[in-house]
Amino acid sequence: MSSQVRIGLAGFGIVGQGLTSILTGSAQWIERRLGRPVAVHAVALRDPHKQRAVPIPDGARVVSNPLELAQDPDIDIVVELMGGLGMAYDLIRLALASGKHVVTANKHLLAERGEELFALAAQKGVGLYYEASVCGGIPIVQTLKESLAGNRILAVTGILNGTSNFILSRMSSKGLTYQAALKKAQKKGYAEADPTLDVEGFDAAHKLVLLIRLAYGHDYPLNKLPVTGITGVTPLDIAYAKEFGCQVKLIGQAKMVDGRIMAGVHPMMLSQSYLLAQVHGAFNAVRVVGDAVGAVMLYGQGAGGLPTGSAVLADIMDLARDGAAPNNTGFPEKMLPPADILPPEEECSRRYFRFNVEDKPGVLAALAQALGDVGISIYQVVQKVDPSAPDSNIVPIVFMTHQAKQRDVEKALENIRAMPFVKAEPVHLRVL
Amino acid sequence: MSSQVRIGLAGFGIVGQGLTSILTGSAQWIERRLGRPVAVHAVALRDPHKQRAVPIPDGARVVSNPLELAQDPDIDIVVELMGGLGMAYDLIRLALASGKHVVTANKHLLAERGEELFALAAQKGVGLYYEASVCGGIPIVQTLKESLAGNRILAVTGILNGTSNFILSRMSSKGLTYQAALKKAQKKGYAEADPTLDVEGFDAAHKLVLLIRLAYGHDYPLNKLPVTGITGVTPLDIAYAKEFGCQVKLIGQAKMVDGRIMAGVHPMMLSQSYLLAQVHGAFNAVRVVGDAVGAVMLYGQGAGGLPTGSAVLADIMDLARDGAAPNNTGFPEKMLPPADILPPEEECSRRYFRFNVEDKPGVLAALAQALGDVGISIYQVVQKVDPSAPDSNIVPIVFMTHQAKQRDVEKALENIRAMPFVKAEPVHLRVL
Repeated sequence: MSSQVRIGLAGFGIVGQGLTSILTGSAQWIERRLGRPVAVHAVALRDPHKQRAVPIPDGARVVSNPLELAQDPDIDIVVELMGGLGMAYDLIRLALASGKHVVTANKHLLAERGEELFALAAQKGVGLYYEASVCGGIPIVQTLKESLAGNRILAVTGILNGTSNFILSRMSSKGLTYQAALKKAQKKGYAEADPTLDVEGFDAAHKLVLLIRLAYGHDYPLNKLPVTGITGVTPLDIAYAKEFGCQVKLIGQAKMVDGRIMAGVHPMMLSQSYLLAQVHGAFNAVRVVGDAVGAVMLYGQGAGGLPTGSAVLADIMDLARDGAAPNNTGFPEKMLPPADILPPEEECSRRYFRFNVEDKPGVLAALAQALGDVGISIYQVVQKVDPSAPDSNIVPIVFMTHQAKQRDVEKALENIRAMPFVKAEPVHLRVL
Repeated sequence: MSSQVRIGLAGFGIVGQGLTSILTGSAQWIERRLGRPVAVHAVALRDPHKQRAVPIPDGARVVSNPLELAQDPDIDIVVELMGGLGMAYDLIRLALASGKHVVTANKHLLAERGEELFALAAQKGVGLYYEASVCGGIPIVQTLKESLAGNRILAVTGILNGTSNFILSRMSSKGLTYQAALKKAQKKGYAEADPTLDVEGFDAAHKLVLLIRLAYGHDYPLNKLPVTGITGVTPLDIAYAKEFGCQVKLIGQAKMVDGRIMAGVHPMMLSQSYLLAQVHGAFNAVRVVGDAVGAVMLYGQGAGGLPTGSAVLADIMDLARDGAAPNNTGFPEKMLPPADILPPEEECSRRYFRFNVEDKPGVLAALAQALGDVGISIYQVVQKVDPSAPDSNIVPIVFMTHQAKQRDVEKALENIRAMPFVKAEPVHLRVL
């Protein structure tokens, strides 16, 4: 590398502008930390004339074709902040193939095609860094890759999506419906007009696949990951959660179970006494349990231009500092073995069930029997009047159970759905 | 380095044994992560015949003089886990001078003599790593050194001592006195027979000096740091804290104030709504606010053989991985400039005061006047019967104030102490 660290920046949206404003505002500080300056040599933009909050850095060449960055001999590190699976993929491939380091915030691409891209980076001996891809400014990639490297990771559990957490926090603190809380999130800029990626759990799923790779050194195919979003979470279930001393959070979790990886993204109930339950608003947090270190939790802002820009910059500085072979996946292997996945029907966790039923004799007994028939053991039962419909003859009956297998849960739900007094699709949540 | 990473281990106490048991139990995993094995080449022990829970690793040479490790050509990294300021200093100096990397958990030594040792390491181009020195298994050193390197750090605030936090947590949850809670901590192995270093805030002070170096790139002389321990914290003040919605925690904090560093270790009240207030028992947590990343918090076990061993191992693996010049302080300079310290009398924070006074007319007014006279503005007042002495004519009067300067606090306390109706030394706590 030259005396300057010369980056080629592809994409100048929220994160690109955040990174640029840090590079400009803290230029002297960054040079002090690194011993040499970081300069934006070129920026690839779709529309160079668009009005932007942050100006294009002085001296940066503006190009319209991002692929030019990959082959510019004056660029040391290509920074991909365009997102998406198309041009971003082409750019990263070409940059790695050209022997350039790449820094990206593109969790979706690395979850879908990481296997191939990390193999190419390993073959070329260059860095493919992605701290900003998982929970923005929280240094969880570095922590799993290096700080906890000597630990066998027993579990990784996180609030990985700020939009969902904002919505669930608002539903909990203000008693809002999902729709009303989503509107609030959109108004505040935390949710996009089409919030699917966030609220359906897909964004959290992308991050979880990256965390699994870092924690266990296995490729876990994204399409094998069980994912449930938060669109079905109701104020009533959040109110019941509170009665049990719990919060409802969208949780991404991976655990080692008998040598196999059990993973998924689901809305879950968790005790108020857990630190994770105290993570409110658009914040993210990841709890890692290692066999040596015990429980460690990292908390911070999972999105936004400056926090995510901070993580991108950490990767740039790390690559600029390291003379050695970069550490991309946390493992020196060129290809990681595929994950040995616990079949989803074998997944075991405590459960919360809510059944809306006709208020008549024998109903509670029949429901309890249906759970017992498949071997699900009940821990607590609540039956009382629905405060939102006190005169209805439809009442909610709520069960908290001990550990139950997904296979048995499905069997029980199938039987219960068929019962004539069951008047709505049963609600069911995992309990952390 | 050779194909094996060969370490020389000085000290085989709690942390040395923790490290060894990880190296033995996870040997294959560590080799997979690193691409080569980590072997204990030699161990320096005072008493080779002592019974230990963890055996000395197979094949390790046992030496009685730690200095032998520093000059053994078959050792790549010297791991100093003896503690203390004497032999540990000699060993680290000699190892660095001999061109060997050093990993240490010795916060006290690095706080006292870090300036000199880091300069020597820089001169020799070798690593002096110390993740285990600050909050055991929590990766705060790595986070400040690399992950947040592009941030101007606005504040670092932490629960840096597990022993004190255990004691204060027990005082709060069980209403114990300091003495009773200390006994409990000693029984559980969280406090030593002589707990001075922990409960007087010195251990937290050592860590805070290391955090200041990492966050700001300045040497802050340990003897300039204002430090108050927890021995004066009473159940009564903890009860008042709860009334104000607060917890009492021993907090180490450094902040940038007008370009100068304001730092100290003190028991402080902090709102229950802060995540830091939810850190209970022997756990540690550090909250960092960066100009780009915003607030980030790291939480975990700050002590114990395995968590601390996990951090030592991370440093070993990091040094074994890096081919480049090691990053010791987070700054490439050979000598860090001295900190520009805000004089302690200029320190500004909200305050809690408790005055035990004779219950007679005019007392509250006189106290309020004494605070007002030095410009301290009152935010809340509570006067009620002391539940532990309901018939006493001595009553506690409690004030919460707005921001107050330490100079003014001292002046007010001086005046108030001289008032004839004040019957005990006034109690005063900072409010975070």
